[in-house]
Amino acid sequence: MITQKLTATASADDARVREAVDGELRRFLARKKQGSRCSETAFFAEMIQQFLEGGKRLRPLFCSIGWSLGSPEAAPQAVHRLGAALELFHAFALIHDDIMDESPMRRGRPTVHRLLTADAPAALPEARRQRYGTNSAILVGDLALVWSGELLLDSLAGHVHAPAVLDLVSTMREELVAGQFRDLRATGSAGENVESVLETIRFKTATYTIDYPLRLGATLANAPASTVAACSDYAVPLGEAFQLRDDLLGLFGDPRRTGKSATDDLREGKATVLMSCALSSATPRQRRQLCALVGNETVDDEGVATVRRIVRETGAVAAVEQMILDRRDQALAVLECGAFPAQPRGALRELVFQVTDRFM
Amino acid sequence: MITQKLTATASADDARVREAVDGELRRFLARKKQGSRCSETAFFAEMIQQFLEGGKRLRPLFCSIGWSLGSPEAAPQAVHRLGAALELFHAFALIHDDIMDESPMRRGRPTVHRLLTADAPAALPEARRQRYGTNSAILVGDLALVWSGELLLDSLAGHVHAPAVLDLVSTMREELVAGQFRDLRATGSAGENVESVLETIRFKTATYTIDYPLRLGATLANAPASTVAACSDYAVPLGEAFQLRDDLLGLFGDPRRTGKSATDDLREGKATVLMSCALSSATPRQRRQLCALVGNETVDDEGVATVRRIVRETGAVAAVEQMILDRRDQALAVLECGAFPAQPRGALRELVFQVTDRFM
Repeated sequence: MITQKLTATASADDARVREAVDGELRRFLARKKQGSRCSETAFFAEMIQQFLEGGKRLRPLFCSIGWSLGSPEAAPQAVHRLGAALELFHAFALIHDDIMDESPMRRGRPTVHRLLTADAPAALPEARRQRYGTNSAILVGDLALVWSGELLLDSLAGHVHAPAVLDLVSTMREELVAGQFRDLRATGSAGENVESVLETIRFKTATYTIDYPLRLGATLANAPASTVAACSDYAVPLGEAFQLRDDLLGLFGDPRRTGKSATDDLREGKATVLMSCALSSATPRQRRQLCALVGNETVDDEGVATVRRIVRETGAVAAVEQMILDRRDQALAVLECGAFPAQPRGALRELVFQVTDRFM
Repeated sequence: MITQKLTATASADDARVREAVDGELRRFLARKKQGSRCSETAFFAEMIQQFLEGGKRLRPLFCSIGWSLGSPEAAPQAVHRLGAALELFHAFALIHDDIMDESPMRRGRPTVHRLLTADAPAALPEARRQRYGTNSAILVGDLALVWSGELLLDSLAGHVHAPAVLDLVSTMREELVAGQFRDLRATGSAGENVESVLETIRFKTATYTIDYPLRLGATLANAPASTVAACSDYAVPLGEAFQLRDDLLGLFGDPRRTGKSATDDLREGKATVLMSCALSSATPRQRRQLCALVGNETVDDEGVATVRRIVRETGAVAAVEQMILDRRDQALAVLECGAFPAQPRGALRELVFQVTDRFM
C-alpha cells in the first residue's frame, strides 16, 4: 500500500537498499525453512515472510543513510543485513501490537492473529479458536524478535564497532517495550495531556522508526560523535511528525491505502495527540460526545463520522498539521547546520517530505 | 517451593552457583532500574525480579556443570552470567506460557498477567482490566527475552568460543518457540499418540531445561565434541523424565508445594503423555468420562478427583512412572560410559535423582 507511493517517489538508491534488504530477509527465512528439525519453524517462517511483504522498509533506509554519514564508501552487505534485522524487530513489534489492540487489518491483509484464528484446528469451539489465534500470534512475534537478534549478530560478526551498535540496539528494544507499556497505561484515559502523549510516542515509535536506525548505521560506520548527536536532532522531531501523521491517517485515512482499519484507534481509545488536542479545545457538548465514542468498542461508521467532524471543528486537525510542519522545519533546519555530508543530506531531505506528507 | 527441597539436598557447590547467578540477576536488574530514562522500565524490572524469586535455577546449574566437563578450573563469572541469561529466558517462556494457558498461579504466587490485571487503572471496566493485564504481561515477557539476550552477550563478550555458544542459543530459542506452537496445536485434541507428545516435550521443555544449558557450558569451556555429544545422550532422556514428572505433578501434585494450580493442565486439555496413556488404555466408559472432563473449562474439584481416579485405574500413572525410571536409568548409564570427568559426573548423578524424584 504505502510502499507503492514511497517507491514511486524514491530514488534509485532507495530501491537498491530495499532490494538488498529484501534479499537478506528472503535468504534468512529460506534457511530457516530448510534448516530446522521442527516443522513448525518452517510454518512460522512462511507467516513472517508474508507479513514482511508490504512493509515500507523505512528503518533499513535510515540505517543505510546513517552509514553514509560516517563513510564515503557504498554501504556493505552488513548494513543491509542490519537493516533486515530492524525489519524483523519491527515485525515483532507490530504483531504483538496488533494482538494488544485486537486490530483486524495490517498492511492491507488480516493481522497475524486473525490469520491464525482462521487456521485453528477445526474441532475447537469458536472462543478457543480465537485464543488459539492469539496465542500462536504471540509465538510468531516472539520468533520474529528471536530471529531479529540472530540476524543482528550475523550482521555484526567480526565488526570492530559491534559493541557500540549492540549497546544502542539494547536501549532501542527496551524503550520500545517500555513505550508500549506507557501507551497501554494511557489507553482509555482520554484527556491525557499533549506533552505526556508526545513522550509516549517518542519512546514507542519516534525513536525506533528513525532515530535509532539512523544512529545505528552511523555508529557502524564510526561516524564522529557530533554527527551521531546531529542524527538525533534531525530524527527525534521527524519521528514525532511521522507518528502525528500516523494518528491523522488512523482517523481520516482511507483503509484501502493505509492498510489498517479506520476505527482501530478509536475503538481502543488510543491516547493520541490529535485526541488530546480535540478534547482540550472541545465545548462541553463536544467533549461529552467524544468521550462516549472514543474507546467505545461498538463504534460504527456514523460514530466515526461524528468523531471526525468534532475533531475538525475543535481545530485539532489544523493544530496537529501545524505540529507536523513545525517538526518538519526543525528536521530540515538540522540538515542546514553542516553536520552531514552533501550526498546523504539530500536523501535525508527527501525522506523528511516522504515521512511527513503521507497521503490521507 | 521446589527450591526449598532442592536446596536442602543440594551440595555446597550448587548453593554457590545459585548465589552467583542470583547476584548476576540482582545486579543486572538493579542497573536497569536506575539506568533507564523511561520510568516504566524500572516497574518491569521489579516485576521480573519478583518473578525470578522461587525459581529452581536448574538451567544455570546444568550450565555450570557443563563448564566443568570441559575445564578443570572453577567456573568463571561469565558462566554464571550465562546461567543468569538462561534464567531470564526461562522467565520469558513461563510468562508467555502462563498467558497462553490462562494460568492463575506460578511459583506459589499469582501469575504475571494476574498481578498486572489487579494493577490495571481503576477506571477500566472488568473486561478491559483483564486485557490490560494480559497485554502488559506480553510486554513483560518480551522484555525478559530482550534482557536475556543482552545479558547473554554480556557474558560472552570477548570470549573466543562465543560464536559456537551463540549458535546453540539460537537453535534453543527457536526450538522452544516451535515446541510451544506444536503444543498449542495439540492442545484440545485429546488422544494424541504418545510418541508425538514426546516429540513435543522434547522441543518444548526437555532440551531447553537440561540439554542446551549443559552443552552451552561445555561449549564455552571448549569441551571435546565427543563430550558435548555425550551431554545430549544424558540430557535428552533426563529432560523427558523431568517433563513426565511435571505432568504427574500437574495432575496429582499439591498446589502448595508445586506452586501451580492442579486444574491448569486439565482445564486446558493439555496433551500430556500421561493423558495419552490413560486414553489409550481406557474402557469406552472411562474414555467418555475423560473426554468430558479434559479441556473442560469449568472442571471442579470433583471432576479433578474423577480424572485422577480414572488415570490411576487405567494404569497410566504406573506406565508413566516406569517411563521415568527407564529414562533415569538411561541417563545414569551414560554417566558410566567414561565420557565425563569424575567430579562433574557426581554432580550430574545427583541431579538425575533431584530431577526425577520430585515430591508429589
